[in-house]
Formats: sequence, C-alpha cells, structure tokens
Amino acid sequence: MLINNRPSRTIREHADGGVRVLDQRVLPHRIEEFVIDGLEAATFAIRQMVVRGAPLIGATAAYGVAVTLRGGKPGRELLETAVNQLAATRPTAVNLRWALQRVSNRLLATPETAEWVEAAFAEARVICEEDVVCNEAIGRTGLQILSQLWERRKAAGARRLEILTHCNAGWLACVDWGTATAPIYQAARAGIPVHVWVDETRPRNQGAALTAWELGQNGVPHTLIVDNAGGHLMQRGQVDVCIVGTDRVGARGDVANKIGTYLKALAAQDAGVPFYVAAPTSSIDWSVEDGLSQIPIEERSGREVTHVWGVDDAGVAREVRICAPDTAAANPAFDVTPGRLVTALLTEAGVVAADAASLARLRAGECER
Amino acid sequence: MLINNRPSRTIREHADGGVRVLDQRVLPHRIEEFVIDGLEAATFAIRQMVVRGAPLIGATAAYGVAVTLRGGKPGRELLETAVNQLAATRPTAVNLRWALQRVSNRLLATPETAEWVEAAFAEARVICEEDVVCNEAIGRTGLQILSQLWERRKAAGARRLEILTHCNAGWLACVDWGTATAPIYQAARAGIPVHVWVDETRPRNQGAALTAWELGQNGVPHTLIVDNAGGHLMQRGQVDVCIVGTDRVGARGDVANKIGTYLKALAAQDAGVPFYVAAPTSSIDWSVEDGLSQIPIEERSGREVTHVWGVDDAGVAREVRICAPDTAAANPAFDVTPGRLVTALLTEAGVVAADAASLARLRAGECER
Repeated sequence: MLINNRPSRTIREHADGGVRVLDQRVLPHRIEEFVIDGLEAATFAIRQMVVRGAPLIGATAAYGVAVTLRGGKPGRELLETAVNQLAATRPTAVNLRWALQRVSNRLLATPETAEWVEAAFAEARVICEEDVVCNEAIGRTGLQILSQLWERRKAAGARRLEILTHCNAGWLACVDWGTATAPIYQAARAGIPVHVWVDETRPRNQGAALTAWELGQNGVPHTLIVDNAGGHLMQRGQVDVCIVGTDRVGARGDVANKIGTYLKALAAQDAGVPFYVAAPTSSIDWSVEDGLSQIPIEERSGREVTHVWGVDDAGVAREVRICAPDTAAANPAFDVTPGRLVTALLTEAGVVAADAASLARLRAGECER
Repeated sequence: MLINNRPSRTIREHADGGVRVLDQRVLPHRIEEFVIDGLEAATFAIRQMVVRGAPLIGATAAYGVAVTLRGGKPGRELLETAVNQLAATRPTAVNLRWALQRVSNRLLATPETAEWVEAAFAEARVICEEDVVCNEAIGRTGLQILSQLWERRKAAGARRLEILTHCNAGWLACVDWGTATAPIYQAARAGIPVHVWVDETRPRNQGAALTAWELGQNGVPHTLIVDNAGGHLMQRGQVDVCIVGTDRVGARGDVANKIGTYLKALAAQDAGVPFYVAAPTSSIDWSVEDGLSQIPIEERSGREVTHVWGVDDAGVAREVRICAPDTAAANPAFDVTPGRLVTALLTEAGVVAADAASLARLRAGECER
C-alpha cells in the first residue's frame, strides 16, 4: 500500500543483504526502518512491537531464522536456538509458530546445511509473497460482502457504507493489503463510498496511530473514536458492518484478537450489525477446541496502561502518566470472542461460518487440495 | 471522604464568602481549588469540567446562581440570565436542570428580592447536604447487595469481592461518598475485602485520574484497566458485580452514563454478572419514556480523543497527540444502556428494578410521602 504515495511493504530485503522493517513504534509521527541483522534484533523487533500483527510477526520470525543462520554456523543447534527464542517472544499469535514450523520443515528437508541460509531466506520470501496473495484474496472475499451490503444500504438511501474496525489488522500488520483492511481498500477502489470508524485501541493505540494513518495514506475516509464509543454508534444505526482481524481462530470459530474485540462483537449482536473476522486460514489453530480455555492470553506490562505515548505540540515524542504514580494496572492484551458472536470468517478460501462444522469442511477441503 | 487523610468535600463555602471547588482538571497530579465568584466562573467550571459528575454539577449550578445574584441586582432578570447560561453548559445531566429549578422555585417563592442572595445560598447548601445524605443512603442500599454477594462468594472460596466500575461516580462526582462508590466505601468499612477494577474511561480518563486516586486515598484496593478489558475479565469470572453511576435515568429504566457503559452492561449480561446503577432518584427524568431516542447525547471536542493529558517523568503536565495531525475524531460523551441490561437501580429509597412498572411504583411512593 501507499506511504507518501509510494507503494511500500512492511518488511523487505535491502540491497545490503539485511532485512528491514517499518518501525511501528514511531508511527505515525516518524517513518523509520529498523534493521534486523540477527537473532537479537529479530526477537527484539517482535517482543518490543517494532513489528506487530499476526501475519507480519510470522514473516519477521521467518526472516529472523534466516539472518540468525547467516550470522552463525547453520545447523540443527542454531536452528533450534533461533526457533525457541523467536517462539517465546509473543504467546498469542498462531502465525508465529506456524511460520517457524514452515522454515524448520524446509531446512530439515534440505540435507546440506550449507544451503540452509539461502533456503531460509527463500522460505521467508515465500511466506511474505503468500501473505500478500492471501490477503488480496481475503479482500476479494470481503468485497463481495461489502458490495452486497452497500447495494442494500444505497437502496435505503445511505450515502456511505459505515465500517467499524478495532486495532490494526491493516497492511501494517501484514506485508501488504492487510486482513481486515483488504476488503476496505478493495471496496474503496471499486467505488464504494466507505467510511471507517477506527477504534483507538487502548492501551497501545494501534487504531489511532496505525489504522487511521494507513487509511489516510491510502485515501480512505475515516474517523477516530475511543474504544468506548462503538456500542453507542452501533445502537444508533451508524455502523453497517464490523470487520476485525485475528491472532488465532479455534476449530469451533472462537476468535482471539486484540483486547476489546469481544465487547464490539457483543454490541454488534445486540444491534443486529454483522460482525466479520478477516482470517487467513493460517491463523486457524486446529488444536484449539474451546478458545476461551485453550488460547493463552498475553499479560503485558501495566505501564502500557498507566502511560500513554505520543508527541507534544512541537512534535517531540513524549510519554505521559495518566494516573497517580502508585496506581497498579492490569493489562491483558487479547480477548476471545466466542464463535456464536461472529457472523463469518473472511478467508482467502471464501466466507466461512465461525462454527465447528463449517471449519471442519474447510479443513477437509484443504486436505483434498 | 479523605484526601491526604483529611476529611474533604468537593465543594465548600470559604470563610471569605466565596465558593471553592476541588479542581478536577489537575487531579491526581495536583490538589488545587478553583474559586467560583460569579456567573462566568460557574459556567466555566461546569463547561470546562473543573467539576463534573451529575450531582456535583447540580450543586455547583445552585451555588452559581447564588454568587451571580450576590454580584449583581437580585431579581427575575438576573435569575433568568444565570439559569439560562448555567443550563446551557452541559446537555446530558438531569441534575443540572433539577438543581436550577430548585433554586428558582425557592427564590420565586421569596417575595423580597433583597432576601434572594441568602435564600439562594441556603438552597445550595440544602442541595449539598441532601446529596451527602442521599449518597450515604445509596451506600446502605448497595451494601445490602454487596454483603449478600460476598456471603455467596466467600462460601465458594473467594478471597475478595471483585467489583468493576466505569468512569468516576465517586465522591469526586458528588459532594461526598459518591454514588457508585458509596456502597464500595461502606463495604470496605464493613470489613468486606473488596477489590475494584477501574476502567480508565477514555477519552477523559476519569477512571484513571479520579476513581483510582480517590479509592487509593481512601484505602480501597483497586487495579486500573483499559476500557477494552472489562469484557474479558467478566468472561473469565474475575468480576462479581458491576456498579456504575448515571447522568440520567428514563422512566422505563434506560440509563444514560459515560460513553462505554453500555458495552460493559452487554458483557455483564453475557457473563451473568449483575449490573447495578447507583442512581439518586433526582437523576430520574420522568419525562423520558425511551432513553435511546429522548436523551440528548453531548458531542464533545474531537481533541479529547486525539490528545491525551498527563504528566511526564518530571511531573510536568503535558498533552500528547496519539495520532497523525490530520486525523479527524468523533467524541460522543455518553451512551444509553437499555433498562433490560440493568439488574437494578441502587437508590436512596432502596433497590428498584430498572423497568417502567417498578419506577412508576417508586414515583407513586414519592408522591405519597
């Protein structure tokens, strides 16, 4: 997608042989790249959220293995070190472990360890390309839904199609396109007059800092709201559809996503607003039957709650404390939305109902291919 | 309640004849008073949220009339000016208009306008004292509920009673005690091991800045969370009861309160957590049948969303922007929770179901008294 009108990706191989990612800690205030030149940089980038978003975490982890192997003695020992350290960076996203498994499988199937560096880079590249292709397909799946909705809304006299999203499941969370945003970008290109309500998404404000910014860079009309406001807007008929991303989907359709997603799904149900989850099939964890009890929820530092980061009037980055100095905070980073609240998953393989039977059919179909 | 271990009130008459309020714009970082010496100061204090919270807004408005009359020529003209300007400061709270009506009625029943200044001060004092008595009674009503809940939880092996609250319906929103906090303070004094999950309450963070601080000043264990987290906690059985305040209750039990209240009520219903609204009967607007269509929702400046206020590491007050400079924001300040989601109202007249029949009985009882 576009940054300053130039097509860009969140992760790329540089001519100097290094891997560079867009540093999402400083967006939207500064546009900077972060260099991933080894295991330490790769784990730092994921843990400290230089990169975030399940698909991009996966791609970064894959490149992390590649740069680790290049910096040492390629072989099982170094591979294991890299995979273990990278897997431990974030607990909730399934793509992280999935990407590491992909790279590992390819390497372990490559007898000559001298070829491992090139093989790891090649696999990381494939993961990135597949992500782009996958998200573009998710966009087509979602575009069908949005087109139908818009026809109905237009017939009812609406002047724009109102979409609400939470957090950033945008192209910044992926390599390109985004998951939840792919249908939005494609709808905008298809001439549907979309308008996006962007939840700011406390505590890290990825909606305010990332989603609003990337929609703006790509010319999509949007309005920032606090996380508290979405229920009110849905209740008042000001939202036609919700689309969010996911970090992990269980086999019965339970959806782990950024904390607060569950509240929006409840409001959507109460107001009769369709609630879609854009989900590459790689985010489905078939080992999870009951998302509520089986998906681990990352508990992050309370400092993310007590302190807010931004820029002052002079554009200087600053962090302010919003409470008394001795106030304790809890910070669960994700929640699980039961499948019963999800209208459907938007996948690269089409629209899939968020229930055990539909997901089982999807899985069987995948196995047949 | 206590500030630095000294019993305090949010509004008081000073020995110099002026009225002073605790300046809530600078809490919890500084403890300062704001002087209300005339109509301009009174309208500023309410509009700019030097004071906030429905009961305290009412008390401030009453004193606002008193200081206005003292500063000019007491009579119908000046009274009308004061009432009109004060009534226009905030649209949602019913207490504002109720308090202005109380003072007006008393003055219009006082033939000698020379006595109006003293009469207005006297009425403002009565409104404040009634608020304290009323909230103490709300506390007793809520304490019954919390005691019963705690007996059940204790029998089930719980070590503390988990309460969630949104925004600040604490003593800082009133003259003393608070509405939603009165049962909490009384439960703590009664030896119930309460713990309060405090929603930060974006965009103005009254939970983080005010509720957490006042609970801390009064020795009540609490943990700050982002507004997104409450659904997750309820889903996981980590909340035993929700208690919130209200700015206005309709005759069928619909509850207007700080934006985001509705989302917590939905989560409480989904998880089977009781959801109580602490409501002085003065906050019931009998003219409102359908809260959703009839209660006006204040739309505040988008700057409250795009900018966050706090203190830096050096304790200097600063405002930071959390999004790109050109990001537009919407800021509805309240939402309406349908009565069907409210377990009951906690009033000074006891527990009242949030439905038309129960409220009609309450009203009939009031008329009999």
